[in-house]
Amino acid sequence: MTETTPHVVIVGGGFGGLTAAQSLAQARMRVTLVDRTNHHLFQPLLYQVATAALSPAEIAAPIRAVLARQRNARVLMAEVTGVDLARRQVTLRDGELAYDFLVLATGAGNFYFGHDEWEAFAPGLKTLEDAVEIRRRILLAFERAEREPDAARRARLLTFCVIGGGATGVELAGSISELARSVLARDFRAIDPKQTRVLLLEGGDRVLPAFTPDLSASAERQLAQIGVEVRKGARVTRIDGDGVWLGEELVGAATVLWGAGVRATPLGASLGVPIDAQGRVKIEPDCSLPGHPEAFAIGDMAVLLDEAGAPLPGTSPVAMQQARYVAATIRAGLGTGAGAAPRAPFVYVDKGAMATIGRSRAIARTGSLRLSGFTAWMAWLLVHIWYLIGFESRVLVMLRWWWSYVTFRRGARLITDPIERGPHRPR
Amino acid sequence: MTETTPHVVIVGGGFGGLTAAQSLAQARMRVTLVDRTNHHLFQPLLYQVATAALSPAEIAAPIRAVLARQRNARVLMAEVTGVDLARRQVTLRDGELAYDFLVLATGAGNFYFGHDEWEAFAPGLKTLEDAVEIRRRILLAFERAEREPDAARRARLLTFCVIGGGATGVELAGSISELARSVLARDFRAIDPKQTRVLLLEGGDRVLPAFTPDLSASAERQLAQIGVEVRKGARVTRIDGDGVWLGEELVGAATVLWGAGVRATPLGASLGVPIDAQGRVKIEPDCSLPGHPEAFAIGDMAVLLDEAGAPLPGTSPVAMQQARYVAATIRAGLGTGAGAAPRAPFVYVDKGAMATIGRSRAIARTGSLRLSGFTAWMAWLLVHIWYLIGFESRVLVMLRWWWSYVTFRRGARLITDPIERGPHRPR
Repeated sequence: MTETTPHVVIVGGGFGGLTAAQSLAQARMRVTLVDRTNHHLFQPLLYQVATAALSPAEIAAPIRAVLARQRNARVLMAEVTGVDLARRQVTLRDGELAYDFLVLATGAGNFYFGHDEWEAFAPGLKTLEDAVEIRRRILLAFERAEREPDAARRARLLTFCVIGGGATGVELAGSISELARSVLARDFRAIDPKQTRVLLLEGGDRVLPAFTPDLSASAERQLAQIGVEVRKGARVTRIDGDGVWLGEELVGAATVLWGAGVRATPLGASLGVPIDAQGRVKIEPDCSLPGHPEAFAIGDMAVLLDEAGAPLPGTSPVAMQQARYVAATIRAGLGTGAGAAPRAPFVYVDKGAMATIGRSRAIARTGSLRLSGFTAWMAWLLVHIWYLIGFESRVLVMLRWWWSYVTFRRGARLITDPIERGPHRPR
Repeated sequence: MTETTPHVVIVGGGFGGLTAAQSLAQARMRVTLVDRTNHHLFQPLLYQVATAALSPAEIAAPIRAVLARQRNARVLMAEVTGVDLARRQVTLRDGELAYDFLVLATGAGNFYFGHDEWEAFAPGLKTLEDAVEIRRRILLAFERAEREPDAARRARLLTFCVIGGGATGVELAGSISELARSVLARDFRAIDPKQTRVLLLEGGDRVLPAFTPDLSASAERQLAQIGVEVRKGARVTRIDGDGVWLGEELVGAATVLWGAGVRATPLGASLGVPIDAQGRVKIEPDCSLPGHPEAFAIGDMAVLLDEAGAPLPGTSPVAMQQARYVAATIRAGLGTGAGAAPRAPFVYVDKGAMATIGRSRAIARTGSLRLSGFTAWMAWLLVHIWYLIGFESRVLVMLRWWWSYVTFRRGARLITDPIERGPHRPR
């Protein structure tokens, strides 16, 4: 490898970016992966950190460690502030990085439909920091309820409102309800955590709309079994310190969590290429940016329509398949001159989808097969353990799950900040 | 139990406070344990969190969960701001708590010998938040070194300075050196983590002065074997953004950690009873406060002299033995009227001490037996696993240790805040 070896810069160490880097392991290229954090996050299990079942380190792996043995790859912890497509330069907060090929995979963040003022009252679940903050809010609500003499205020502290009936919302609501009813049941004296109310507010007419109506109905039944109240057609008009407003009706809740909307990270909008209403880059059929065959955008920050004209879902299989496709394109581009050969379009192979609802409850579909309940949950468990990056995490997470399953305990019930939160000061 | 059942208030959920609560399980009393965090911390392993070997949840257990089955105990997460000894009331930030018996066990914090301005540059290791902050600084120093083109600045980023040759300092220094030399060795491209310098600065003439001189000498040899430079007679005169000043000499280091001094928490000084220069309450031979036979102070916030006139060490065995002794005194006090019967003085039974230096390196003494090297480390390992509260942690920590031992990997290498640190905002 020399300085003239083609240089591939990958921005983002999520499912898309990391897979792209790994798929270039055999290529005679220099690969630089840039991320503003030092870890790859196994986002499908983030709700388990938020509800105290797993520790952050069990669902995150240092990107450096994942790529340690890949000699053509280096990892930079840095913040990308922009891309100069004409000059083929990535702008960092403190420097620049020239590329021959570029893969953008910075994902999506929470979106509050223009109501950014809701964010302080209803955090979303995108990063490890978000998960620890949500865990803190949930556990503190029980601590405050234990000390609250006023019945109405106590009820408000024991009401948890999750907005959005997609996978994140369903998983969070189910997991909070189980935390309260099984795990915390014995721990308190003044309150009965079983009186906890968990509401799942969905604007549409069913939860998990990405699945078939019968699976949605099954999910709603399973949620009811573990004590989650599902309200459909719930249009949120305001979120404040009192709770969630649905028009004139106030749902009083001390803890409100947001799972309703995401929006592509702002990098896409800064590129000067067409984006859609969710801020996603409208990529070409070969995942490249219009007019820039050497630059690609994949995963949640990009949008591509399937043959029926619907956007591909914002899931890790899409990002990972796009990453492998783009890596193959880049490798092929070496021989023919970048962008010279006509490229076959990216085709998404849908292997199925699953969502978990709670301990031994889930729904899943693959091909024409539809599962729900315990079998779907077992499938979910096996798939998620299998894809956890790093053998250590896999074994330890499995053990921890088995232990929680048998004992109804959760190990990571930590509030790691003072009661009155402020910026961290070492004491 | 009724409202007239005697009420014991325990302040602090560390080794002393938690043991006191558990030792009152069979007493016909109401027990209230107050702590400003929700977790009991296994402080002897805190340095393992600071050096990315263990996760916070593996060395901390929710106090509520530990006391869940003890029906006469309740747990309050609250901040104690003072005690009115005359009225027998504990003042909380947001309320009051009347007691019949009081056990104060709030421990100690870092002490910078009057130089509080050093704290920002040299955090100490007392809480989970401290440990995560130190882990962040250590890992970020390597990340920054990887991107630093200037050789002198890179060397400064790769220099770690630990101040204080007591157990905390020795454990931190040894563990950082092993992290750099074994765990991170493969992960970087531009830097060689094996060129890391770890300095341990001790003001006296040997490290671990609580042990015999031959064990101190053994510890110094073992530290040298794993690459730690020990400097004795090092008088720190200033700590700033450049590093540590020893008079006119600057030891340039990007990461400076403090293990040199502790001081009792301020609650002791607020009581209006005599304290010593380290802020510790001068307790009576029965661990009670002078003039208040119903109120006790134990552990690191109190000072008691042994028969030779030396203060008992600030270790968990002292705190736990005092806790059991005080619990027995309180139970006995029930029959005789509080403080009426003459009490036998507290006697500390010294079962030994140990300090770990690194992977398979330690020193230990028990009775006349002195161990060093691998046998001392095995003894250290067994004792620490045994005393980890909670079966789940014990098994998982053992597995994690076994795994790191075999593979030289550390699982918790997470930087969980943006590069430029600020107060947390959900994103």
